[in-house]
Amino acid sequence: MTLAEQYQQIRKHSEHICEPLETEDYVVQPIIDVSPPKWHLGHTTWFFETFILQPFFSGYSVYNPNYNYVFNSYYETVGNRVIRTDRGNLSRPSVSEVYQYRAYVDQAMLHFLTSPISEEVSALFILGLNHEQQHQELLLTDIKYILGNNPLFPAYGKFLTRFSGAESKGNNMLSFDSGIYEIGYAGDGFCFDNELSRHQVYLQPFSISSNLVSNAEYLLFINDGGYTNFNYWHAEGWDWVNDNQIKAPMYWHNVDGNWLNYTYEGLNPLNLNEPLAHVSFYEAYAYACWKGMRLPTEFEWEVAARTLEWGTRWEWTESAYLPYPGFNKAPGAIGEYNGKFMVNQKVLRGASVVTSPNHSRISYRNFFHPHLRWQFTGIRLAR
Amino acid sequence: MTLAEQYQQIRKHSEHICEPLETEDYVVQPIIDVSPPKWHLGHTTWFFETFILQPFFSGYSVYNPNYNYVFNSYYETVGNRVIRTDRGNLSRPSVSEVYQYRAYVDQAMLHFLTSPISEEVSALFILGLNHEQQHQELLLTDIKYILGNNPLFPAYGKFLTRFSGAESKGNNMLSFDSGIYEIGYAGDGFCFDNELSRHQVYLQPFSISSNLVSNAEYLLFINDGGYTNFNYWHAEGWDWVNDNQIKAPMYWHNVDGNWLNYTYEGLNPLNLNEPLAHVSFYEAYAYACWKGMRLPTEFEWEVAARTLEWGTRWEWTESAYLPYPGFNKAPGAIGEYNGKFMVNQKVLRGASVVTSPNHSRISYRNFFHPHLRWQFTGIRLAR
Amino acid sequence: MTLAEQYQQIRKHSEHICEPLETEDYVVQPIIDVSPPKWHLGHTTWFFETFILQPFFSGYSVYNPNYNYVFNSYYETVGNRVIRTDRGNLSRPSVSEVYQYRAYVDQAMLHFLTSPISEEVSALFILGLNHEQQHQELLLTDIKYILGNNPLFPAYGKFLTRFSGAESKGNNMLSFDSGIYEIGYAGDGFCFDNELSRHQVYLQPFSISSNLVSNAEYLLFINDGGYTNFNYWHAEGWDWVNDNQIKAPMYWHNVDGNWLNYTYEGLNPLNLNEPLAHVSFYEAYAYACWKGMRLPTEFEWEVAARTLEWGTRWEWTESAYLPYPGFNKAPGAIGEYNGKFMVNQKVLRGASVVTSPNHSRISYRNFFHPHLRWQFTGIRLAR
Amino acid sequence: MTLAEQYQQIRKHSEHICEPLETEDYVVQPIIDVSPPKWHLGHTTWFFETFILQPFFSGYSVYNPNYNYVFNSYYETVGNRVIRTDRGNLSRPSVSEVYQYRAYVDQAMLHFLTSPISEEVSALFILGLNHEQQHQELLLTDIKYILGNNPLFPAYGKFLTRFSGAESKGNNMLSFDSGIYEIGYAGDGFCFDNELSRHQVYLQPFSISSNLVSNAEYLLFINDGGYTNFNYWHAEGWDWVNDNQIKAPMYWHNVDGNWLNYTYEGLNPLNLNEPLAHVSFYEAYAYACWKGMRLPTEFEWEVAARTLEWGTRWEWTESAYLPYPGFNKAPGAIGEYNGKFMVNQKVLRGASVVTSPNHSRISYRNFFHPHLRWQFTGIRLAR
Repeated sequence: MTLAEQYQQIRKHSEHICEPLETEDYVVQPIIDVSPPKWHLGHTTWFFETFILQPFFSGYSVYNPNYNYVFNSYYETVGNRVIRTDRGNLSRPSVSEVYQYRAYVDQAMLHFLTSPISEEVSALFILGLNHEQQHQELLLTDIKYILGNNPLFPAYGKFLTRFSGAESKGNNMLSFDSGIYEIGYAGDGFCFDNELSRHQVYLQPFSISSNLVSNAEYLLFINDGGYTNFNYWHAEGWDWVNDNQIKAPMYWHNVDGNWLNYTYEGLNPLNLNEPLAHVSFYEAYAYACWKGMRLPTEFEWEVAARTLEWGTRWEWTESAYLPYPGFNKAPGAIGEYNGKFMVNQKVLRGASVVTSPNHSRISYRNFFHPHLRWQFTGIRLAR
Repeated sequence: MTLAEQYQQIRKHSEHICEPLETEDYVVQPIIDVSPPKWHLGHTTWFFETFILQPFFSGYSVYNPNYNYVFNSYYETVGNRVIRTDRGNLSRPSVSEVYQYRAYVDQAMLHFLTSPISEEVSALFILGLNHEQQHQELLLTDIKYILGNNPLFPAYGKFLTRFSGAESKGNNMLSFDSGIYEIGYAGDGFCFDNELSRHQVYLQPFSISSNLVSNAEYLLFINDGGYTNFNYWHAEGWDWVNDNQIKAPMYWHNVDGNWLNYTYEGLNPLNLNEPLAHVSFYEAYAYACWKGMRLPTEFEWEVAARTLEWGTRWEWTESAYLPYPGFNKAPGAIGEYNGKFMVNQKVLRGASVVTSPNHSRISYRNFFHPHLRWQFTGIRLAR
Repeated sequence: MTLAEQYQQIRKHSEHICEPLETEDYVVQPIIDVSPPKWHLGHTTWFFETFILQPFFSGYSVYNPNYNYVFNSYYETVGNRVIRTDRGNLSRPSVSEVYQYRAYVDQAMLHFLTSPISEEVSALFILGLNHEQQHQELLLTDIKYILGNNPLFPAYGKFLTRFSGAESKGNNMLSFDSGIYEIGYAGDGFCFDNELSRHQVYLQPFSISSNLVSNAEYLLFINDGGYTNFNYWHAEGWDWVNDNQIKAPMYWHNVDGNWLNYTYEGLNPLNLNEPLAHVSFYEAYAYACWKGMRLPTEFEWEVAARTLEWGTRWEWTESAYLPYPGFNKAPGAIGEYNGKFMVNQKVLRGASVVTSPNHSRISYRNFFHPHLRWQFTGIRLAR
Repeated sequence: MTLAEQYQQIRKHSEHICEPLETEDYVVQPIIDVSPPKWHLGHTTWFFETFILQPFFSGYSVYNPNYNYVFNSYYETVGNRVIRTDRGNLSRPSVSEVYQYRAYVDQAMLHFLTSPISEEVSALFILGLNHEQQHQELLLTDIKYILGNNPLFPAYGKFLTRFSGAESKGNNMLSFDSGIYEIGYAGDGFCFDNELSRHQVYLQPFSISSNLVSNAEYLLFINDGGYTNFNYWHAEGWDWVNDNQIKAPMYWHNVDGNWLNYTYEGLNPLNLNEPLAHVSFYEAYAYACWKGMRLPTEFEWEVAARTLEWGTRWEWTESAYLPYPGFNKAPGAIGEYNGKFMVNQKVLRGASVVTSPNHSRISYRNFFHPHLRWQFTGIRLAR
């Protein structure tokens, strides 16, 4: 595929994800961690405009100077950001204006790509594509949150039912020897800065489960009083459970004694065979405690993943999100991409049913605060 | 006009107000006091469905039982209310679904009105119309807030420019004698329960300004350091100023030393001759203090209004919102209409450029918390 | 009594109130509305130093210039105030330092009073004495809060048991005719600025209860589900009940089905015959609603009090705390005494078991926010 | 030393630390992380009573059953804890009652120690002594916070001036080779559960500074605009700086252009040669960023500490506080000691001027949330 074809395919896919939405669904922001879909569509476009077209495409005329303020994210270098909570207050630019903005930038990008591009621009271009694919996952999980927290529980649609889950199979523990292992991205394709540098890590012997925890297994934890026994929880996890009256994973509803689960298809009886999703790190840790086991470190996971099946859930690890030895942040705004979040977050490994396929690589490091669970976050046990 | 014609005229006017909106504008709730326009359209419809069609129109089938939860307001008698902050999180029902709901209820209402109605139903019907007219004013002020707090400052439109203001004329003080005056609604038309019972009040001699404070006059207060001298303010007002960094009325923006003002037509130079709008009670009090005067009581206002010109601004009074002697709240849900708000609020008298004409009566009592200023609230001085 | 004798008597009484305290009890501030006892002792001293000794006693040397910051209250004119919440964080000045400060200022005051004083100083002196007496009541109620919210429930002491209550007698309604009544302070002694000017008010006919509501009567309201039926409550009162899980008056504890009540003597069985105390305005209003009656206005109360027995509870009225016609605030810092609080507060009339006897006058206006109940606040019904 | 002598020495030292205090200083809790000194004295006593005397000393009579509620900490197994914020509201038990409680428990412990004790009890006894020594450090840092945040800036006293600091000497980088190193406690004395198990870690080559950052060096960062350039900060650190208006380390005050520093001796000119103290992890990270370097990991630190001088500051590391391989929490309440805090905290290594000497060991792991800085926290750079 040419660069232009890659660009078009990825850009179109973002819009394809939004096809089932009503205009109103593009606008709201029910919690601070969820962004309005139209913001995702605008922000990924702003990335190409700001980091490629403005500096490198001579004669390019910015679509609307105010959009920098509206669609900027954390990139403090580039100007004042919108306070994230405010995104859901902005009815304008309208959805159709955002699509016009996309069309304008896409036309310019395709024009720009008719000439050869430098290595520097190429790196930014690839980063922009990967950035948009990250936002495609967020689009899907944010849409699920917006619809799944509406009292009418509207369905997103059937054509994406491959998203709803996957069967969880029988379970056994795989053992690994102690020794020095190589960790981090090794290939010559694209990776994010936080996957580098590849380095050696010494691991103690460990074993890890061949399968993700299923809904059925997690239900045993609930039924055994897991949410009411502080012994299984971190002190902060216990506060989180009590302050928020948490009694089950996100999207689970107990109606007259039956467990229902909101999926992209609507509110339906809980599928017991599916891998568990939408739990926080606190819940993952408590579940492991209750089982007398623990969560794997990200290094154990990366070693084991060479032989495991994975890819339907982001899997919480015990590891905190920290720089690898030799981590270098790029100069300027692009350098803020990952490094500035390396405190108070946990690493998740794997990929989920809504992750872009080319983001499913063994060295990929996802990260969230330990209380978050609107992503397809699951549990794999170790010991 | 027949009842059906009255009904249709008022119902259509709500939709007419929303014509200039984009779909997205119907959805957002930037602050708790502002409701999304589609909520106003649904809530006023729910009122007719719940209080008239359901109890009195035999065979009526409720449009959607979930809408009671979505569109109920404070009427605790009728079921669980939505927490007000959540209204802006609900993308569904969509705007077109809300319009369908309106059409369904309107058709039923018109059918219902083809038969004679009892006095009890008639009272509820009139209340429902007045209720919708109150929401028409809120629709217009909420829309102003939604658009006027968007960084793109979109205009609402020209065809409503009569809304933007009115000239403030020369000023003189009118004097009134002490004595016993009659206060409260006296006619045989509709009034709200809080305007009753008509009763006698003894007033000391007072004088009151023939005109509202203008933007030009208020600018003198700002330029004299009014917002930085605590002597003019209530203790709570001073905290409000400092906590919120208040430096001017809402919608005023000082850009490079020039005062701009957001109106329905967009962001434009401040019109100095217009009556001041969008100030809180705290600001009204501080301004009066600075002038060495005071705000009128609601009783003084009602007496003076028989000879004054008024009707473009809601005017803050010194009076707290309290029941009149003999105030009786109606039994059941309708009885919650006004009485339950009679604490910690101030009375405003008059009417504004966006008030329904038949809500402009001398005995009408509006009320808001002292810090609010998204209505067209102004100042008239007394002494 | 000479001025010096009056001064000494009142100053000694503040210290007498604190005699039963441990040093530690002087220091804490469990809620923002309660001040540490040592702060009261220092603040009342600071008043005499700042408003009399510094301006009028030539050669007076300020005890410690930092104390202005520590012991100032709301008097913004005089300097930066301590944020009220911080008072409970200050271990220094120590209790013995505060007593030394009192001794130093007292000696200077007594020296100062050996010479004749001007009318202006005399007014400030009388205000200072009344100010200290107001703080004596706060000392007693704040001490009750500090001890009564300690899990060990220490008693304050027996020698003040006259404070614990008073019998509530039989009950009947007294009727008053409509007409013009005189309201406000009339004598030639001291009164606060908010009791002036005396003015005429027109009242509708009303009747008022000869007695305060007793604990036994209020218990019927509780047992009838008064705290769980929103129909009796203001909207804000209902939120207050639910947000704070209010189920009974302050200091009532239901232990194994029996009602205990913390008094100055410790935690004891509830005395059913005593007049109810420690309820908020919201509770007073809800109770009146439940009885099918209402609270009196402050004007009705003042008229009726000429023939009623009163003086053991501060009685919530329906009236908001507002200036009387012709209210004038004094120039300078003293002028902030009352006017700046005239928003969002309710008037209480009467006096309580811990009020200084010479503050028990028919025109006295106390005021608190509607949710507060650490004072001896009670209920008298009207209709 | 016999066990009884060890016990007496450590117990007396806690009281020795409090000698310079006024009674009032024992009571307050200015921020949630600081506990009132009398709480520390009571809590460490409660530990011996609850975990040794009650289960193992037959015939022991609990001093006061309510104290379990008052002096319990996080040990959820043992009963309801006091919400930490409330500690500063409790004037009782008084300081002298707390000392009586200590005397009562000490007498019982000394009696108990006259007979031989089992290995299980011995382990609890040693844990209790180490627990009390940890609280001795907290006592000293909490006292510093209480006095150093009082507007009168009282000194703690001269006899502890060895606490105020230490000279910072010349600086050079020490290099270490890559390889497998042993990490964790190795001896046969006491250590905390979080120092185990000793295990192997592979380290890349690194170099580390021979000295701590001095006040003079940190001043260069401030003067270069370090607190106003977001490029040096984590996103959360940048929010922390702005939300709290942080402009310098805790206890630094810029008065008329001169830097003053509160130490145990009072408010004095900043000593430029002293090692920097009282910075948060966010500040430590930002400083390292500005220098183009980084913080060491806890493993690098432990390896380097075998040849480094250290012991006057707790040193922030890049490492998150996580369990070592094979970490086992003890069963029951004691098991809650460390494991439940292993999320969202950073490891500090070293020891400070106020640490008990026998807590200065190379494997000791201290941990705090990244925003905290009331401990003697400093910076050592690595690369």
